[in-house]
Amino acid sequence: MKDLSTLIGEYAVLLTREMKNILDKSDVSRFGYEKVCDSVDYSVSAGGKRIRPFLVLEFYKAVSGKSDITAALPYAAAMEFMHTSSLIHDDLPAMDNDDMRRGKPSNHKVFGEATAILAGDALMLLSAETIASNPHCSYEQNAKGVIELMKHAGIHGMIGGQQIDLLGEAADLDLDTIKKMHRLKTGELIATSCVLGCIAANASEEQIEAAREYGMSLGLAFQIVDDIIDVEGVSYKAGKTLGKDAKYKKSTYVSVCGLERSKEDAKALSEKAKNSLLAFPDGNASKELEELCDFLLFRNN
Amino acid sequence: MKDLSTLIGEYAVLLTREMKNILDKSDVSRFGYEKVCDSVDYSVSAGGKRIRPFLVLEFYKAVSGKSDITAALPYAAAMEFMHTSSLIHDDLPAMDNDDMRRGKPSNHKVFGEATAILAGDALMLLSAETIASNPHCSYEQNAKGVIELMKHAGIHGMIGGQQIDLLGEAADLDLDTIKKMHRLKTGELIATSCVLGCIAANASEEQIEAAREYGMSLGLAFQIVDDIIDVEGVSYKAGKTLGKDAKYKKSTYVSVCGLERSKEDAKALSEKAKNSLLAFPDGNASKELEELCDFLLFRNN
Repeated sequence: MKDLSTLIGEYAVLLTREMKNILDKSDVSRFGYEKVCDSVDYSVSAGGKRIRPFLVLEFYKAVSGKSDITAALPYAAAMEFMHTSSLIHDDLPAMDNDDMRRGKPSNHKVFGEATAILAGDALMLLSAETIASNPHCSYEQNAKGVIELMKHAGIHGMIGGQQIDLLGEAADLDLDTIKKMHRLKTGELIATSCVLGCIAANASEEQIEAAREYGMSLGLAFQIVDDIIDVEGVSYKAGKTLGKDAKYKKSTYVSVCGLERSKEDAKALSEKAKNSLLAFPDGNASKELEELCDFLLFRNN
Repeated sequence: MKDLSTLIGEYAVLLTREMKNILDKSDVSRFGYEKVCDSVDYSVSAGGKRIRPFLVLEFYKAVSGKSDITAALPYAAAMEFMHTSSLIHDDLPAMDNDDMRRGKPSNHKVFGEATAILAGDALMLLSAETIASNPHCSYEQNAKGVIELMKHAGIHGMIGGQQIDLLGEAADLDLDTIKKMHRLKTGELIATSCVLGCIAANASEEQIEAAREYGMSLGLAFQIVDDIIDVEGVSYKAGKTLGKDAKYKKSTYVSVCGLERSKEDAKALSEKAKNSLLAFPDGNASKELEELCDFLLFRNN
């Protein structure tokens, strides 16, 4: 079996090509609005771990047993468009006010706030369009894929989580609220990535629910590790401003539970995620998905 | 036949109920993110002419000949969600910086910028979800409906138009660029409203293209009239800040062509729109759609 980092890197290359193909509509005259096109390209090309698309592709493999992941690539691209959109809006001065993202100046620092708002909007819309028009899947799969992503990115998903996050800057949150915030803000879209891979492979309801559980556990673990890195990590490696949470007295998993308990909880969630993989045939992709749990747990950026 | 204003009013009531039903997911715990829910409700309830949903419903009638418009109501609601989303983001300080909208303080004046950004995002996502899950249409119709709206709201549609609009605040635009701006910013979504009504009624390709032409002509006329009202209108009636374009030296159709030529062009476009209605069976809804052209041309808010 390939080393996990190698596989993630290989998928990232395929994904980047897919996203560029989708963005490059050469028959369209961009005259007058080149700026927002450049702004979208800037953030889409900025790299990142590409974990969400990786999950789409791996769950497609886990269910279908196919090594050709072409059919799931549009869904993978859609997840990355949506994730990138949320990062652009999150970094805005009115939101987290972050100057750096993925080791580069954040979108609004380069293109200004107005264009950054529009670029985030454009990527959100493109995300839905990309799922709805996946030529390798049926109308039914595509319609269900759109519902899955819009619902979990929407007001009772990611957006709701971001609203809780904003309140956490002004007030102390308790652990239940922090968990809810992480579940909504991060867990839902990690889980949706897993589910979209399943939808592309016509998975059973049972598999879809197992994929969702894997994603929710992994997502919460991922976010706890993020909070830990903000305290322990190194800015150079993370490619973003660190120590911000403490500076702004933001409630985090770590500030409420302490470092030790946070590390234990992340580990337990990671184990829970691994157990969810029992619903998938051995040998397809479950080994990589198991490894991913450790990969994310022991990362330092 | 009913008076047009009465019909628009009746549809607005049906639409408002539909939107409230969609927004009211009573099984969901809003704990922690009530603010963004309130922010969405605030703008969705703020009224407005509801022209886009009206067009969805009327084109559904024009094609199907049915007076029961239930099947098209979710698409109509989706159009209004998308439109409302664009208004919330448009009013932001980084964009048009408008304090008033539909006679009330704009969303960010009440809920703050961060929540207004999230509310706009949420409505955009809800718009796609609402189309994709229309229970009265097939998966094929719903997937095509999502593609239609996302494409024309997206970077090569409404978003592109808004980017041109932003540039117009800093530089002089020529007439071609202003037309392109209006076509993208307003025309595309007016046309999409007409097309969505057609998709819900399983219209022919020919009818879809005629509906699109009607919408594009009407949309440009509508926007020219908007520019005229900004110069001639009364703030109280329009429910928003007027005279802003001149104050900020923004290039508009009127500032480039003058009032007389603008009025002539709006009238000619309105006639062109009426001619597109020949593709639809007489008596279904074409009379109302004809009247709508005059209604929008001679409005004063």
